[in-house]
Order: sequence, then C-alpha cells, then structure tokens
Amino acid sequence: MTHRATIDFLLNEWLDAPSLCQRDFHADHSSDTFAAVLDLSEQVASEQFAPINRLVDIEEPEFDGERVLLPPQTEDALNCFSEAGLMAASKSEALGGMQLPTVVEMASMSFFYKASVALAAYPMLTRGNANTIAAHGTPTQIEVFAKPNFAGTSFGTMCLSEPQAGSSLSDIRTKAVPDSGDWANDPLGPRYRLTGNKMWISGGEHEMGDNIVHLVLAKIPDATGQLVPGVRGISLFIVPRKLVSASGEISDIRNDVSLAGLNHKCGYRGTVNTLLNFGEGKYPVDGQAGAVGYLIGSEGKGLACMFTLMNEARIAVGLGATMLGYAGFEASLDYAKQRPQGRHASATGKDPSSPQVPIIEHTDVKRMLMAQKAISEGGLALGLYCARLVDDENTGTLDQAREAGELLEMLTPIAKSWPSECAQEANSLAIQILGGYGYTRDFPVEQYWRDNRLNMIHEGTHGIQGLDLLGRKVVMNQGAGLKLLISRVQMTVAHALDAAQATGLSTHAKALQQAWHDIAEAAQSAWATGKPDEALANATAYMQGFGHGVLAWMWLEMAIAAERSAHLPAEFRAGKRAACDYFFHHELPKIGAWLGVAARRDMTCAHATAAMF
Amino acid sequence: MTHRATIDFLLNEWLDAPSLCQRDFHADHSSDTFAAVLDLSEQVASEQFAPINRLVDIEEPEFDGERVLLPPQTEDALNCFSEAGLMAASKSEALGGMQLPTVVEMASMSFFYKASVALAAYPMLTRGNANTIAAHGTPTQIEVFAKPNFAGTSFGTMCLSEPQAGSSLSDIRTKAVPDSGDWANDPLGPRYRLTGNKMWISGGEHEMGDNIVHLVLAKIPDATGQLVPGVRGISLFIVPRKLVSASGEISDIRNDVSLAGLNHKCGYRGTVNTLLNFGEGKYPVDGQAGAVGYLIGSEGKGLACMFTLMNEARIAVGLGATMLGYAGFEASLDYAKQRPQGRHASATGKDPSSPQVPIIEHTDVKRMLMAQKAISEGGLALGLYCARLVDDENTGTLDQAREAGELLEMLTPIAKSWPSECAQEANSLAIQILGGYGYTRDFPVEQYWRDNRLNMIHEGTHGIQGLDLLGRKVVMNQGAGLKLLISRVQMTVAHALDAAQATGLSTHAKALQQAWHDIAEAAQSAWATGKPDEALANATAYMQGFGHGVLAWMWLEMAIAAERSAHLPAEFRAGKRAACDYFFHHELPKIGAWLGVAARRDMTCAHATAAMF
Repeated sequence: MTHRATIDFLLNEWLDAPSLCQRDFHADHSSDTFAAVLDLSEQVASEQFAPINRLVDIEEPEFDGERVLLPPQTEDALNCFSEAGLMAASKSEALGGMQLPTVVEMASMSFFYKASVALAAYPMLTRGNANTIAAHGTPTQIEVFAKPNFAGTSFGTMCLSEPQAGSSLSDIRTKAVPDSGDWANDPLGPRYRLTGNKMWISGGEHEMGDNIVHLVLAKIPDATGQLVPGVRGISLFIVPRKLVSASGEISDIRNDVSLAGLNHKCGYRGTVNTLLNFGEGKYPVDGQAGAVGYLIGSEGKGLACMFTLMNEARIAVGLGATMLGYAGFEASLDYAKQRPQGRHASATGKDPSSPQVPIIEHTDVKRMLMAQKAISEGGLALGLYCARLVDDENTGTLDQAREAGELLEMLTPIAKSWPSECAQEANSLAIQILGGYGYTRDFPVEQYWRDNRLNMIHEGTHGIQGLDLLGRKVVMNQGAGLKLLISRVQMTVAHALDAAQATGLSTHAKALQQAWHDIAEAAQSAWATGKPDEALANATAYMQGFGHGVLAWMWLEMAIAAERSAHLPAEFRAGKRAACDYFFHHELPKIGAWLGVAARRDMTCAHATAAMF
Repeated sequence: MTHRATIDFLLNEWLDAPSLCQRDFHADHSSDTFAAVLDLSEQVASEQFAPINRLVDIEEPEFDGERVLLPPQTEDALNCFSEAGLMAASKSEALGGMQLPTVVEMASMSFFYKASVALAAYPMLTRGNANTIAAHGTPTQIEVFAKPNFAGTSFGTMCLSEPQAGSSLSDIRTKAVPDSGDWANDPLGPRYRLTGNKMWISGGEHEMGDNIVHLVLAKIPDATGQLVPGVRGISLFIVPRKLVSASGEISDIRNDVSLAGLNHKCGYRGTVNTLLNFGEGKYPVDGQAGAVGYLIGSEGKGLACMFTLMNEARIAVGLGATMLGYAGFEASLDYAKQRPQGRHASATGKDPSSPQVPIIEHTDVKRMLMAQKAISEGGLALGLYCARLVDDENTGTLDQAREAGELLEMLTPIAKSWPSECAQEANSLAIQILGGYGYTRDFPVEQYWRDNRLNMIHEGTHGIQGLDLLGRKVVMNQGAGLKLLISRVQMTVAHALDAAQATGLSTHAKALQQAWHDIAEAAQSAWATGKPDEALANATAYMQGFGHGVLAWMWLEMAIAAERSAHLPAEFRAGKRAACDYFFHHELPKIGAWLGVAARRDMTCAHATAAMF
C-alpha cells in the first residue's frame, strides 16, 4: 500500500483531521485543500528531492577556503519547496503562512523526509528557528528575521553544542557582552558581541538564500565578569550571517562568524555540518572583533526559549527517522516483489526444476517486510498523533490544549527515541532483504541506514531521552502525565473490547492493558527507594519498554480504525491488521526484559568501575 | 582489561589449551610457543594492519581497465602476515605449517580481525581455499595449489554465488564441459572448460602474489547436454588465474577469467569484491574460449566439498564480527575514559560549578560499555570454544571427535549469526558513546559499524542460518545434537550450583537451566504439527533465542573460570562476573519473546500476502 494511502487513512479515518476546519484558524480549509497540499508535497518531494538524494551523499559539501560548496541541485530543490509555500504551511497569514493544521504540515513533511532526509533538514531547521523567533521575539525581530525564514529566502540554524559541551549544555563557554554604543536600544533588540565555538551546526555555512539566521546559546558575564555556571546563565541570541538593517534590508557586511571546519559524517551528508567560530575577528564589524547578536527573550532564559525549537525538533527528528524506515521499506518491498530466488517446499521437498519464486513469497522475507511496515507505519502514526496534539495545543479549547500539552510532554521522548532506534533496525532489515546488493551503493538502502544512524545522537541523545522520560516526565505533577496517557490507552482498550466480537481484537486489548499496568508499575518500582541513581540506572531500558507500549497502543488504534473503514480496500485493511498482529505477537512481548531491569533497580552497570572493563 | 589478557584467560583458565600439547600432532608446542605466536600476532596486527585500516576504507579498489589497483600497503601488510608463518599456523609441517592447535590459530586471527577485518579477509579466504584443496584434492593438486596458498605466495577465492543465484545455489548456471585433448588424464586433475558469471567474489582480481586460485562451483551437463537441476548437479573446480604446470610453475598465461566489475560496498572496502566472467573469451587458452578448471573431488559432490570451506568460513565470519565489536568496545572505552561531560547528581542536585566527570562515570555509558564487553568477549569465547571443538575433531579421541563434530554442527549457525547481529549492535553503541564524534570519519567506530553490516549477509544469510538451525541441526538424528549440547549446558549448571555457595552463581545457573528447557520445548512445539512451513515460520526468531541461550552458557562458564582463577587481578575477575551478571539480567530475559513466536507457530508473517504490504 502506498505511503499516501496510509497518510489519508491516518488523517481521515483515525485522527479526524477534517474536523479541524471547524476551528477559526483553519476555517478556509477543507479536506480538498488538505489533499491538494499533500498532492503537491508528494510531487515536489518525488520530483525534486528523491532524484538527488544519492548525489548529495556522494558530493559531500566542500570548503574551498572561501566558500562552502554544495551541489547546486540542493538550492534548486529547496527553492521548489519554498515556492510551494510549504515552509510556513501551518503559520498564520500574517507570517506568510497557509494556516494549515500542524498534522497536515507534518504529513506533508513526511514525503520530504522520505525523499531526502538530508535536504529536508534545511527547511526543518529553518522553520524551527523561525518558530522560536515567532514565539519569543519582538515584532521587529519577527519581521526582520522570522519572516524571511518562513518565506524560505533566508535559512536558519540552531547553535547549541560546543566542542566541549554536547549533552551538557550548562557547560557552554560562548560569551556575549554588551556591544559598544547605544547597545540596549538597538531596534533589533539588545545588541551584544559574541565569542566562542559552536560544534555540529547543521546548515551553519553555505551560499544559499539571502542570509543565514543563527540562533545561538551564550552566556552573559555577571557583574564580576564571570560566566554563571549552569543553565540559568544561558541566554539566546539572533546572530545573522550578514548584518541586517532595522527595516530588514540585508547588507553585504559579513558578521564575525567564520567557518572553522566541516564535519565529515558517515551519513546525512547532504546537510552541511560545521564548526563555527563566533567573534574570532576574521570578519570584524565596525572595526571590532565579536559577532553581533541580538538578545531574544529575557536574559538567562535562553534554554527555555530554545526548547520551543527543541521539542518541535525532537518530534521532527523522530518523523525523519520513521520516514527513512519507510523509504527502506518501500525499496525492499519493491525488490522483494521482483527478485526471484529459491522455491517453496512441497510435501516431497523442493523441485529444483520448477521456476524460482519472488523472494516476497518466503516467510522470513515477509517477516522483515512486516517488521519494517510495523515500524514505519507505526512511527508515522505516532508522529501524526503528536502533530495532532500540537494542533489541540494551538487551536483547541483550554481543556484540550492543557491535556494535549501534557500528553506531548510524555510522548516527545518516545516520538524522538523510538523511531531513531527502531527505524534504524528497519533499515538494516531492508539491506538484509536486498542481500549483497543492499550492501552496495548501487541501491539506496545502505544510505538510508547510514543516514538514520544520526538520529539517536542529535537533538538530545538516546540516553538523554531516557532520563527525560523516567527522571522528569513520568514523575512530573505526581505522575499526572502518565495517568493521563494511561487513561487514553484505557479508552482504546475499552473501544477494542467493545468491538471485540466483530474484530477479534480482545486479546490484543488485554495485552495492551497488561503492558501499561507493567509500565506504570515499573516506574513505581524504579522510584520506590526515592534515589535518583537507582531509579534512573536503567532509564534507557525503561524507555525502550515504554516506547513499545506506546507503539502497541498506536497499532491497536490503527487496527480499530481499519476495522471500521469498510469502504477501504480489503487488502489495505488486512495489511493494517496484520501489522498490528505482528506488533503484538513479535514485539510487545519484548517489554518484559526492558521493564524488568528498571523495576528491579538492577545496578550491574551502575556499580561497574572503569577498571572492570 | 586487554584483549590479550582475555585471550590468555580463555585459553589457559577455561579451555585448557596447553593440554593439547600432549597430543602427538602438537607435541613440539608448549604454553611458551603459544604465547610467542600470540605476541607475534598482536604485534604484526597492531603495527601492520591497524594503521592502514582507514586507508583501505578510503582508497577503495579501482579498475583502470587493465588491472585492479589496491593501495600498495595492502600487499605489504599481507606479506608480513605470511612471513610470520601465520597462514598455515595449524597445518602440518608437510603443508608448511606450524602444527598449532586451531584454537591458538583462531586466537591469533582475532588480533587481525580486530585490526582490519577487510585485510584479514584475504588470509581467511586463502586459508579456507587451501584447506578445501587439502581435504578433497589429489596430492598433485595439494602440492601445486594448496601449498602456495598456505605459504601466502598465492591467494585463494571461493566462487559460489552468481548474479541470479545467491542463497539458492542449486540455481547456478556456470557450466563445465570436458576440455579437448586428453582432458581426463591431466596430472592436475580432470580438465574442464568453464563458462559463467560469479558474483560477490572477494579477492577475485588483483595483482598481489604470484597467482589467484579460484575454487568454482559449476555444473557438468548430463548426457543430453542439460544442466542437472538442484545441488546434486554441482561440482567443484580449481581455476587458477594464471595457468600452472604439473610441477607447479606458474606461467604468464592468463586463464580465461576476466573482471566484469567491482562492487562498491558500504563497508569492508579493503577487500576487493568482484563480478567475474569465466570463459567469455577475453583470455583464450590454446586459442579457445573457456576458463580451464580442474575437477576436485568427485563429480556432483561440489557442494559437499565446498562445505569444508563454508563451515570454517562461518565460524571465521562470526569471529570477524565479534572482533569488530571488540574494536569498537576498545575505541569507545578509551574515549569514555578521556571525555569529560556532565556531572553526578548529589542529594541537592548537580553543582554546575564543579568540574565535569569523564563520561565513563555515567551509568548509561557504563551500560553501553558493558553491553559491548558482554557481546565481544562472549563472542570471542564462543569462537574459541568452536575452535577448540575443531581441535577435538582433528586430534582428539574417536569419541571426542564424534561429539565435537556434533556440537560444531549445532553451534556453527550460532557462531555465525549471533556475533553478526549482536556485535553490529555493539558497534552502534560504540558510535553512541562517542556521540557526534562517533558519527564522523575522524574516529574509527563508524567504519567498524559499516564493515560489520556485511556479516549477516555473506557466507549464508541470517535467514539461512535460522533454517539450518531449526530445520536441520535441531532435528538431526532425532535431536541427538541438541541433546548433547544441552547435556553440556547441564554440566555447566551443575558446576555452578556446586560452586554456588562461594560464587553466588546459583541464580544464573537456574536461569540457564530454565532457558534451555524453554529452548528445547520451543523446538518441540514448533515441530509439533510436523509441517515444515509452520515449524520454520519463525526460524530466525528461534535462532535469536537459541543464540542468547548459548551466550548465557558461555558467560556462566567464564564466570566460573574467573571465580576459580584466584591468581588473576581482582578487577579482571570482577569484570568477567559483571559482564556475566549483565548478560543474565539484561539479555537472557529477551529469549521469551523470540522463543514464544516459534513455540506458538505464529503464522502472522507466513500468511501475509504481497498485496497487504
């Protein structure tokens, strides 16, 4: 079944996206306009992005000493994306947007992630950057910096990590000091000079568009001239690559931001990744070293502002991982239908003189396809479910918004971590189906696999997601978020049991109920001693179990929706049911091993010393 | 702890390798000669192989239209290996060997696989090729073809797959017809002319050494001129790249074997991988197209002969996968000790002004190191255990040889599949520990991960191993092999229970006993209906469960050995125990999910149709 058919199913038969048109913000939309945007997205993605996905892997960004050179097709493809109006799809008309629901915007993005995740990273980052400015910036900052990003004429980056500070952002050393002159009253915001080094900056330097808008975390020294330790010392700054006037005219004057080097990655090579030096004096402004930056939001609140972008980015990273999984699923499905190899055994063994069968007829190949289907369609469902919650947060009633916000808090670590891990495994299965061919660069699957390996690392590592889930989200507000999530799961269970006579889903419903009982109990046992080092000793394993629990819920939801969608093709519905069965039979039983170590507060790893390894 | 310390522990404290010197074949050896060979191996591997491992990844083999060009350092490194006498380490003096036990030879090889798996593939293949000729060839064939391979002056390949026939060898189309003249009485063996295409041939064409000896599977047409369908039509031929006289002089005459193309792989790039055309007429011999080949063994017994090489290659592939895991473990352990990041939480939270700690102090990093340790040291134990069984097969008593042969049959699919899958995951954890740095080509871990991805594909795919295990090995001789294996596991359990008061291993012993009860029962349930399509529908999952059962057994064995080795450093012994605990707490509980689908004969995947996907 096609990606588009699954999108339509999820939006129309499950998430009831058309009903969002009843909300004022989306009042000009209808199922038809949603479909038109999806048609256009699929077309631009398949015609402009997919054909150059291998090219941008092979022709890695290069620095000629002056400029970073990308294959020119990169900019052409991104221009098509922007010209289609997709950059600001969900934004207000005032920001140049189309006022589409986020769930439709995410569905649109899924085509681009699948076609070329490395190219899609540019709009993903640019949009996140613009959203952050739109949320926390002044009207002038929004006009001058966010709007060109939403229009796709400028690009955006997020500059958090430094060579010595990755996961530990409290240790950043980039410094921002008030600029000379009337710095506090600059129309673009309080004007500072920044010095420091930023590592792993995607899209950090290139010649595309009119400008690059960097969002930079830095520390403002206190009265004694010291940087405040910890995250409370961090502020957020807008640092444009070229200086911009208060009315938004982009000058030819380079800001003091220079390229220190390109990172040569194992995958995701179409996204240029840089080490940037801020304020080293290569491009002095007004004769003075120091990158000019404008404070956004309040002093010391930089990390909170950045988390607007970060939470959005985490869901986007998860969807990107999912769609790499989907791309591998499609490629290996196509191959499995074409490639003859081997035969079925009959009662008398195999007849070697009979013709070979396509490998899709072998059960182990079906297993590898079904696993990929369960992962990529399940991940897509989760991504769109989260996007639908963002819609409730933005345009729902107060109650809807509050609940959606709470559910998003719970689900974000899973939306990020689960596809990053599982869709990576899906990509490995795609290689396996193609065998030796899959291991060569003549087929796309090895690239998907390499590209996907980044996703457990960036925007908060896998380990960080686990700590976030078990250390913060599960316990926040006396476990209110977890309770809310479980109450939603219970609704699904009840629904499945109601419908059970017709659908035979009662076994899965009971298994899901038991799984969430175990997930809740494991959290309680992990925290039974109240000691964080014991509770969190197995946070990653806990997250794996929790993630499988969430995906099982998604699959039961989809199976119910497929069951009631009698107007859809029988094979489509049977496929959804089979993937649900697969997940409940093959995957959900794995949670016991993961939850067990968390519940027992297993300290085997925690107590190991360096000398034991 | 070092790789070498673990090797010494496994050989001396566990496998009792020195006792092999009491056997006639190894009578000239002692612990000292073993140690000298290991010293030499470690030195050559670290000085000649490791330093060029990245080079051979970057400077991929190229074809200039005439010749295949490899980085010249490749041949230099391989010469050092041969000159150290390691190619024939375990062979008789008559074959130019050192008469070392196989277990010592494998321990020696572990250093080379770790240093550069792609370079080590050349001796691995060359040795396997020579072993096959030594086992099935005539004295002249052995003299002329096997001995130069054992000396390392010639190279060997195995030519099985064809573009249309990978896993399904019965479908090969390469044809061998009797050569003109007195073909039946050629001193080198019955002389044929071969035509056909062979795919995925590692080491298939290059300019190193004096010659390349191809071992080629082909079919001899029957009386009607037809190729016999199925595997019983397959014969094995020696096809030298350059023609050789009956006295072994290598001529300048090229045989009719030509390069059709190089495969451009995702990893393992230091091993040239080729598509070869046999007999297309590019290099006619005596004015005639057709590659000259000499029959080895009997007509129609080619696959049986090739399995001499294949079983050996499967264990070697598994050890190669393990040692890639080991390489990543070492690299990430080193990094984790150096890299400062983050802090410990105290009762009052974290003090951001305190210095950062090395990341090895974080529990989740320890988890990733412990998993790598458990996988790579566990895989090494399994590889050496299998090698020790080969020694019993070769030089043990009749009873020892028979039992060893039966155990090897059971363990070979696991020795191949388990490290291929799990050490690949270990490599992913190594990347994760290095974070963004691990994802760049500035560090070695991403290459290990790419290199390792081949191992689930070559020498029998993962799926083929599962069918071999559950479809053949588990049921052979009314389950005698499985019973024998379980009786060995029971001995370990009894041993651990005996020692339990001192060691506290009784919980693990009971868990292992239960696991093997479940493994045996799952096989019985899978076959309960006697229908292969039901029994084998979940053969891969069964193999995963079985594999974890084997590795848990290895770890309990190692924990017992560490316990009794009071003369070894306390931290070394504690490390072995911790890895054992890790495996039993975190990994062994996973088998339930895998065995469950096999035991229930879950048909979710088997019953899926192509249209459902």
